[in-house]
Amino acid sequence: MSAYKEMGEEELKKELQLLEEEYKKICQDNISLDMSRGKPGTDQLELSMGMLDVLNSKSDMISSDGFDCRNYGVLDGIPESKKMMAAIMGTSPENVIVYGNASLNIMYDSISRSFTHGVLGNTPWCKLEKVKWLCPVPGYDRHFAITEHFGIEMINVPMDDNGPDMDMVEKLVSEDETIKGIWCVPKYSNPTGISYSDEVVRRMAKLQPKAKDFRIYWDNAYAVHHLYEENQDEILDIISECEKAGNPDMVYEFASTSKITFSGAGVAAMATSKANIDSIKKQMTIQTIGYDKINQIRHVKFFNDFDEIKAHMMKHAEKMRPKFKAVLDMLEAELKPTGIGKWTNPRGGYFISLDITEGCAKKVVDMCKAAGMVLTNAGATFPYGKDPEDKNIRIAPSYATPEELTKASRILVVCVKIATLQKMLGK
Amino acid sequence: MSAYKEMGEEELKKELQLLEEEYKKICQDNISLDMSRGKPGTDQLELSMGMLDVLNSKSDMISSDGFDCRNYGVLDGIPESKKMMAAIMGTSPENVIVYGNASLNIMYDSISRSFTHGVLGNTPWCKLEKVKWLCPVPGYDRHFAITEHFGIEMINVPMDDNGPDMDMVEKLVSEDETIKGIWCVPKYSNPTGISYSDEVVRRMAKLQPKAKDFRIYWDNAYAVHHLYEENQDEILDIISECEKAGNPDMVYEFASTSKITFSGAGVAAMATSKANIDSIKKQMTIQTIGYDKINQIRHVKFFNDFDEIKAHMMKHAEKMRPKFKAVLDMLEAELKPTGIGKWTNPRGGYFISLDITEGCAKKVVDMCKAAGMVLTNAGATFPYGKDPEDKNIRIAPSYATPEELTKASRILVVCVKIATLQKMLGK
Repeated sequence: MSAYKEMGEEELKKELQLLEEEYKKICQDNISLDMSRGKPGTDQLELSMGMLDVLNSKSDMISSDGFDCRNYGVLDGIPESKKMMAAIMGTSPENVIVYGNASLNIMYDSISRSFTHGVLGNTPWCKLEKVKWLCPVPGYDRHFAITEHFGIEMINVPMDDNGPDMDMVEKLVSEDETIKGIWCVPKYSNPTGISYSDEVVRRMAKLQPKAKDFRIYWDNAYAVHHLYEENQDEILDIISECEKAGNPDMVYEFASTSKITFSGAGVAAMATSKANIDSIKKQMTIQTIGYDKINQIRHVKFFNDFDEIKAHMMKHAEKMRPKFKAVLDMLEAELKPTGIGKWTNPRGGYFISLDITEGCAKKVVDMCKAAGMVLTNAGATFPYGKDPEDKNIRIAPSYATPEELTKASRILVVCVKIATLQKMLGK
Repeated sequence: MSAYKEMGEEELKKELQLLEEEYKKICQDNISLDMSRGKPGTDQLELSMGMLDVLNSKSDMISSDGFDCRNYGVLDGIPESKKMMAAIMGTSPENVIVYGNASLNIMYDSISRSFTHGVLGNTPWCKLEKVKWLCPVPGYDRHFAITEHFGIEMINVPMDDNGPDMDMVEKLVSEDETIKGIWCVPKYSNPTGISYSDEVVRRMAKLQPKAKDFRIYWDNAYAVHHLYEENQDEILDIISECEKAGNPDMVYEFASTSKITFSGAGVAAMATSKANIDSIKKQMTIQTIGYDKINQIRHVKFFNDFDEIKAHMMKHAEKMRPKFKAVLDMLEAELKPTGIGKWTNPRGGYFISLDITEGCAKKVVDMCKAAGMVLTNAGATFPYGKDPEDKNIRIAPSYATPEELTKASRILVVCVKIATLQKMLGK
């Protein structure tokens, strides 16, 4: 195999013909594979089954501050749960509110509250003509879905290996009062897997937004989701960086145990400044009497301290590494020699981001689907589902087995090659 | 003891003097009692401890339709959980969405969604000049807190033993397009304990509101919360009544297991028409990936069928009856002979509603507080915390023991008598 750009037209045509034959065969195999969503595999869920043993009918259900976790009350979480979630986020328990099972829900609620009641005394966004949002791309489709749902105009900001283009972010937020927020997945970013450099975090914390109610939505979804014991990414603590920079209220940080314990039944939390917490709790006290404290105490009793969480995450990593490897090996073996495609080899998180030839991503995803292999929709990693260059494909290797992933990646590389060759040959 | 209205001034003064002496003594006792909130007692929470044994590390975590409850997904609840919540509400599973742990949160979110995105295609309420709401009184303070939080103008509607004044409701909703909803606790109403008559439910279902996006917020919080085996209140199913009346989309019904299993860690649900469900799910899919399905399956496995829920509720009733009795006995013995006060003797629910002499409720609550006994704030059962006649006191007997309740009710009746006598004597 040699690089496509060094091949002549006849050679390319021949290669395409062989690949099209292979694709036909694949289509006849009645395959059903899925690399579309960042769902933990069943083997990962098994790792937390012990959590169902920590409470039983004889258990002490009293929190560290003497509260009966079975009853109503405790709006912002029991102290030991705040401590646990603070450790995961690398912040202090007093900055934390513990919620229900999903951090996505907290983000949605935060934006919804900003629309109906405003942020820290500022005009509710529903009274504004226009609200805009910065969206580092490629990014997380469910983030973009929330801002789109609220009619917020999304502005793409390119990402590189250090994080979002901060020159662009600084310029835009300092000039435009309608820009009210930015989506960030600062560690093992969805989908590229990169972590924000210290410089990017510091520049983020030092932003001088024209809008007083501008907030960084810091979705620290993969805070402890390393793939390796060594060479783990670490990022600066945005909360204290914002404090140092004189912007203590500028950030909302989010995290959950969804990909630590059970994806459907974890504990989610937000971390932010005291002023934000006080303001948010005023609304929360209207919205609910309190979230599920039994699940909070269940988590705390399963993980006695942060070291146990770190050790638990290494068990996840053991399950995840062969999955990532299956995909990466295939890309390495099949795409690298052809000189097409550029992909990430992340040290954590849930995704591999693959950039292929411009204009080919949608075609590849459709071809894969026709062959029985589901990928995240092309464009999903961009606001409005529109990848301006139609080149990014998000690969989610967590849910399938390594064997399935080898098969699925094989289909993927065949489709990528076909689409590229067709483009090169003007088909 | 004789009726106060038959006593002369000197006799009243002497009675007042004796009571004031008793009150002084009570104040010296350093009592700390609470009849303020409808929290289950610890003995009631113990009844559900077995629920913590139904799942363990060996459990099958697959829902009846083959879904792994530990993983992401299943937006509207697993089928068996829908079935359970439908049985509680007396409706069909296909009308049900199962949420997280709190029905209050569903109500808040429903109103919030109506503000940001409108109801079934109608104008979002945040774009309207004015939104009004009907509030049967006395009612539930947390309901009124939600509508107040959204700046909704609340209109008091008097309640009698059959429910809200339907002449008034019919007239208002048919004339005023800005009236978008009504709060209802149709069974064992908070705080009066009455249940809506069949006629009231039917008239409710037949309403012809001027606003197309008018919704009945039917908080069926005490659907199975009977105090007795016999003479249980039953109400008509509002969902099918609305269907019959040609108003299938007019009602949102809410319920939870908060006062069935654990108040902090139950399962909550909404029931409504298919059109409403389809519309709500479109928003939910942006807000969350799914609620805690492990807690859903835990509940289903604890209660194998609806008969077990009914039997379980009788165990609650056993704990609750002596508590209600302690309060009612005191009112009967001490207030009845004086001819002051009017109270309910409910067959279910969590409250006793006491009406005393006009202008005296706030004074009584303050005096009780000074003596170490906390009651729900006077006025709390009315919108904006303002009881126009300052006469209603909500008594919540669930959390304390019968012995404590006897003491607490003793303080209450002393304070009621003092406030009444002071008023009669022009003090």
